[in-house]
Amino acid sequence: MLNTLIVGASGYAGAELATYLNRHPHMNITGLMVSAQSADAGKRLDELHPQLKGIIDLPVLPLENVAEAANGVDVVFLATAHAVSHDLAPQFLAAGCVVFDLSGAFRVRDAAFYTDFYGFEHQHPEWLEKAVYGLAEWQAGALADAKLIAVPGCYPTAAQLALKPLLDNNLLNTDQWPVINATSGVSGAGRKASLKSSVCEVSLQPYGIFNHRHHPEIVAHLGTPVIFTSHLANFPRGILETITCRLNAGVTAQDVAEAFHNAYHDKPLVRLYREGVPALKDVVGLPFCDIGFAVQGEHLIVVATEDNLLKGASAQAVQCMNLRFGFPETQSLL
Amino acid sequence: MLNTLIVGASGYAGAELATYLNRHPHMNITGLMVSAQSADAGKRLDELHPQLKGIIDLPVLPLENVAEAANGVDVVFLATAHAVSHDLAPQFLAAGCVVFDLSGAFRVRDAAFYTDFYGFEHQHPEWLEKAVYGLAEWQAGALADAKLIAVPGCYPTAAQLALKPLLDNNLLNTDQWPVINATSGVSGAGRKASLKSSVCEVSLQPYGIFNHRHHPEIVAHLGTPVIFTSHLANFPRGILETITCRLNAGVTAQDVAEAFHNAYHDKPLVRLYREGVPALKDVVGLPFCDIGFAVQGEHLIVVATEDNLLKGASAQAVQCMNLRFGFPETQSLL
Amino acid sequence: MLNTLIVGASGYAGAELATYLNRHPHMNITGLMVSAQSADAGKRLDELHPQLKGIIDLPVLPLENVAEAANGVDVVFLATAHAVSHDLAPQFLAAGCVVFDLSGAFRVRDAAFYTDFYGFEHQHPEWLEKAVYGLAEWQAGALADAKLIAVPGCYPTAAQLALKPLLDNNLLNTDQWPVINATSGVSGAGRKASLKSSVCEVSLQPYGIFNHRHHPEIVAHLGTPVIFTSHLANFPRGILETITCRLNAGVTAQDVAEAFHNAYHDKPLVRLYREGVPALKDVVGLPFCDIGFAVQGEHLIVVATEDNLLKGASAQAVQCMNLRFGFPETQSLL
Amino acid sequence: MLNTLIVGASGYAGAELATYLNRHPHMNITGLMVSAQSADAGKRLDELHPQLKGIIDLPVLPLENVAEAANGVDVVFLATAHAVSHDLAPQFLAAGCVVFDLSGAFRVRDAAFYTDFYGFEHQHPEWLEKAVYGLAEWQAGALADAKLIAVPGCYPTAAQLALKPLLDNNLLNTDQWPVINATSGVSGAGRKASLKSSVCEVSLQPYGIFNHRHHPEIVAHLGTPVIFTSHLANFPRGILETITCRLNAGVTAQDVAEAFHNAYHDKPLVRLYREGVPALKDVVGLPFCDIGFAVQGEHLIVVATEDNLLKGASAQAVQCMNLRFGFPETQSLL
Repeated sequence: MLNTLIVGASGYAGAELATYLNRHPHMNITGLMVSAQSADAGKRLDELHPQLKGIIDLPVLPLENVAEAANGVDVVFLATAHAVSHDLAPQFLAAGCVVFDLSGAFRVRDAAFYTDFYGFEHQHPEWLEKAVYGLAEWQAGALADAKLIAVPGCYPTAAQLALKPLLDNNLLNTDQWPVINATSGVSGAGRKASLKSSVCEVSLQPYGIFNHRHHPEIVAHLGTPVIFTSHLANFPRGILETITCRLNAGVTAQDVAEAFHNAYHDKPLVRLYREGVPALKDVVGLPFCDIGFAVQGEHLIVVATEDNLLKGASAQAVQCMNLRFGFPETQSLL
Repeated sequence: MLNTLIVGASGYAGAELATYLNRHPHMNITGLMVSAQSADAGKRLDELHPQLKGIIDLPVLPLENVAEAANGVDVVFLATAHAVSHDLAPQFLAAGCVVFDLSGAFRVRDAAFYTDFYGFEHQHPEWLEKAVYGLAEWQAGALADAKLIAVPGCYPTAAQLALKPLLDNNLLNTDQWPVINATSGVSGAGRKASLKSSVCEVSLQPYGIFNHRHHPEIVAHLGTPVIFTSHLANFPRGILETITCRLNAGVTAQDVAEAFHNAYHDKPLVRLYREGVPALKDVVGLPFCDIGFAVQGEHLIVVATEDNLLKGASAQAVQCMNLRFGFPETQSLL
Repeated sequence: MLNTLIVGASGYAGAELATYLNRHPHMNITGLMVSAQSADAGKRLDELHPQLKGIIDLPVLPLENVAEAANGVDVVFLATAHAVSHDLAPQFLAAGCVVFDLSGAFRVRDAAFYTDFYGFEHQHPEWLEKAVYGLAEWQAGALADAKLIAVPGCYPTAAQLALKPLLDNNLLNTDQWPVINATSGVSGAGRKASLKSSVCEVSLQPYGIFNHRHHPEIVAHLGTPVIFTSHLANFPRGILETITCRLNAGVTAQDVAEAFHNAYHDKPLVRLYREGVPALKDVVGLPFCDIGFAVQGEHLIVVATEDNLLKGASAQAVQCMNLRFGFPETQSLL
Repeated sequence: MLNTLIVGASGYAGAELATYLNRHPHMNITGLMVSAQSADAGKRLDELHPQLKGIIDLPVLPLENVAEAANGVDVVFLATAHAVSHDLAPQFLAAGCVVFDLSGAFRVRDAAFYTDFYGFEHQHPEWLEKAVYGLAEWQAGALADAKLIAVPGCYPTAAQLALKPLLDNNLLNTDQWPVINATSGVSGAGRKASLKSSVCEVSLQPYGIFNHRHHPEIVAHLGTPVIFTSHLANFPRGILETITCRLNAGVTAQDVAEAFHNAYHDKPLVRLYREGVPALKDVVGLPFCDIGFAVQGEHLIVVATEDNLLKGASAQAVQCMNLRFGFPETQSLL
């Protein structure tokens, strides 16, 4: 039984984490916390997220002192803002905890990235080096003795799961950059008051064109340039990515199918479509990434879907934790 | 040609007002304004409401000085917060303008109402006396020489249009209070950042039970008690009210139909259903209030729908203005 | 380990049933079936409901012969059309199965009800007599040796859970009939092609006023008249009911709270709100019925929510099955 | 005053056409018709589309005999199925009417296209030759004496308006095919019962990958290959297209802006964004196509939006009619 603490439990991803960990047979939630300034501090989780009434009635406590909070804790999940994770993770690590960070604070081994895209100077290059990027299907080995796991961003998870088998098998003509057209529900922006999240204002709109912080994260980990265009749409949850690629000469649909099959046939949280492509609704509320594709001549369209809060955040964090500690990969997730 | 000023033009109702008045053949918009502190001051209306690109490109100016703003203006529309309207209306009236106020500041002739439901002491009892309540179908005569028109609230418009013909014809057994179950889209809460308006948070939920400020407005003008329960739902615009009433003994469906027919057969913005009841979608974007009903024994269900921003706010304001100045009732509305 | 068969597995409620039973530690799904004429016959469940990919890959088989299908089966769930259940249930009962019927075919002990509201002559009055109405919180005792369980309709479940504690404690002045204003998502109409279910057509609209077949079901089981008005709204799942009642003289909010507490404090699938009222989103995807209320003078508003496919159908069927066979009440549901 | 007939008036595009033409000062609607077999024949338009109550109360009549129907008619709008338009247009042309066809039946001058993508052999090659493709901003001259106007498809309108200025100015490196990622609301599938259009089934999903009939229409008229991927999304109306292009070496954002400006500065129904890109909500219910873009290095993202039923169908048909007969281009549209 591992003692676990969730910091940032009051957000959407935090609530999902709490739900998973609450039913995990090997985990004991010792605390739900938020930053001491948060207006949510002191409330019960099921007041903030009434869907959890009758399921979890723990309070969300203010994090005042990391040393005290870390006392007796084996595993910490940080569902906090990027700069907050950046500060907290080293402290919890110093206290001996294994840290799963859902923010962007340790995802890319390039300190300049943080100045450019997150607006702060990274102070912990040694942890940037040691952090394991938790794209679970591709990092299982590296997770085994990781101390700090940087859980990937929501968009990058789907994009990389879709593209890595193709790149690793040299199927793509990368002279023509893959075009990733991605659409996300509003929960991707977090649980906060914003006119942009209002039912009256959201419709379907591209945002952050050429400038989204998930773009360099994708490029850094794939090792190849891509064009990434994110859109906001009028639903609470889910991401759908339509990725247009150029195949190398002679590559067939069968080659694509085999690459996906070889990569994922034994991965329980990636579901491959033999025919057709996935629809967003079929992953909402579930921990899967669904992938389908179509080929015509040298053109390939890959479609990947996930719940941005689950495989794009909390479910993947728990999946990494399961792999890290040797539990069944989908424990508590299905 | 009347010169007109819209104060509070940056909100949802303000933008609709601007659209109507911009195409009105007898109105000349001399200014769009917001309070001087507003972050919207200085922007163009079509920046704030891009659907108006190519239609209206006027700037939204800060209201610094009422006397200056009123100079040469015949008609002022106040789409401002209640307390702001309370302060501004008398000043514009003093400057000789005819004022159409879309807030609640002058709707009820009982100063205590404002203390209880709006949180301010009313300072202008003389204007409370003189204000004409702009329920257009029922106040046409009174509008002719009105100086201050208090345009009704969104919920009260539909509720009163549905109930007045029944009460006036003595069809209802009011020992059993009519039960008004009303559901509104999110724009009813105004254009502002709020977690409660987020796509992630809105579903269908009652709010303000036994305590909504539109309840006493309805009761004051109908002159009979009712039960009013408002709900918020996951769409931008529109109100549907399902009103359950007890008929007096012997009253028939035919009597109900006649009461509605007599009240509204010559009113272009009330559409009566001879069979069935209206659906919300059929009034969204349109200036109508739709009314249908069903009778079984002594029980009557009336269903009324409207676009809360139009017949529930801006369209009714323009309708009142048309009646006030002798223009065709639906000028610029259809 | 009980062997179980789901007939009508291809619909929305059937798919939810399959999901619950598939993870139930004491149940073994021996077959998923549909009527032999169904276009769904022969397809895999996860083709029809792709969200189940990687979870259930059973085929949906045509039900050709009841005796064969019943062979070795302990428990049958009928998620079929009313007339189909009416015909099938007695056959499966004759074969020794315990039958949980999610249709309306055995809910009311009055054969005339079926002629009036379901359009067929009921042929099995003996089973109408023996059927146990599966409103789980109120029938636990009666379920223990039931052979045929008629799982309540979606609207009646929420309505009765909200009203029974009040009626049983004689808190309501029933001279004034409770007014039940109910709004449901589109899945209540079943999985079928219909212009009325189209994204382009659904908004918010009352339907079946004074004539919905769930009305007499509610009245028959509560034993008191009510007014019931159903609405269709623009979301896939969930029911919210706002119920307006008259209290007997002297009844207080405290009395109401105690009645609910006494009825449900030990019922895991009813969640009571001490303050405020529930929102629809908080039950979607969950097996609960949530209840809250407000009192002002002699007026009481009760708000009850549920997922129409879960507590309003499949979850309640499984809950009844758990109670019938002595499994933990929420086994596989939470 | 021109006499006009709308065939296929009962569909979504037909109802919008009727609304525009009903308020057009130079048009007289002499008949609304549907095919004689349609279940809609004999109903009033405002029964089928209740939003039109109080606006249009004409009946929708069965089209039994073209010669009779065409008698005295100057202009015919065909909002009919492709094969129906193919048969009707030549008959109305023979009777001397000017025909605006909203179907695909006369859009591409290649008879094989119809066999491949529409499933019928084209019988009227002479009319394929004579038909003018009604992309209004680009065909104004050709419209002046056109007899048969083939109004473009919804997706092709936005795609071509976005790409033509770039191609005509030789700004694009077309070795890399433009990638058009397009998302449409459900009304694009027409007014009909379909499980695929159900609120319970629609989420966000690509469809018709590499095989949509609008793809060859776009390619034929642009004269350059593109990749086109259409998606269905959970809203009634609107299309958003995100188009990813490669610029020729040395082409700047300024060049792109100028190309758009030169093409559209005097076109009232194309709205250009100087900064940022359009959101879908801002064109719904309006006759515009909105276009914005962003450039980074040699990469260009163009975003185009329109209401699929308006600029993508009915509004463009009326725009073409206005240009054809010398009325103001936006008459009755704004």
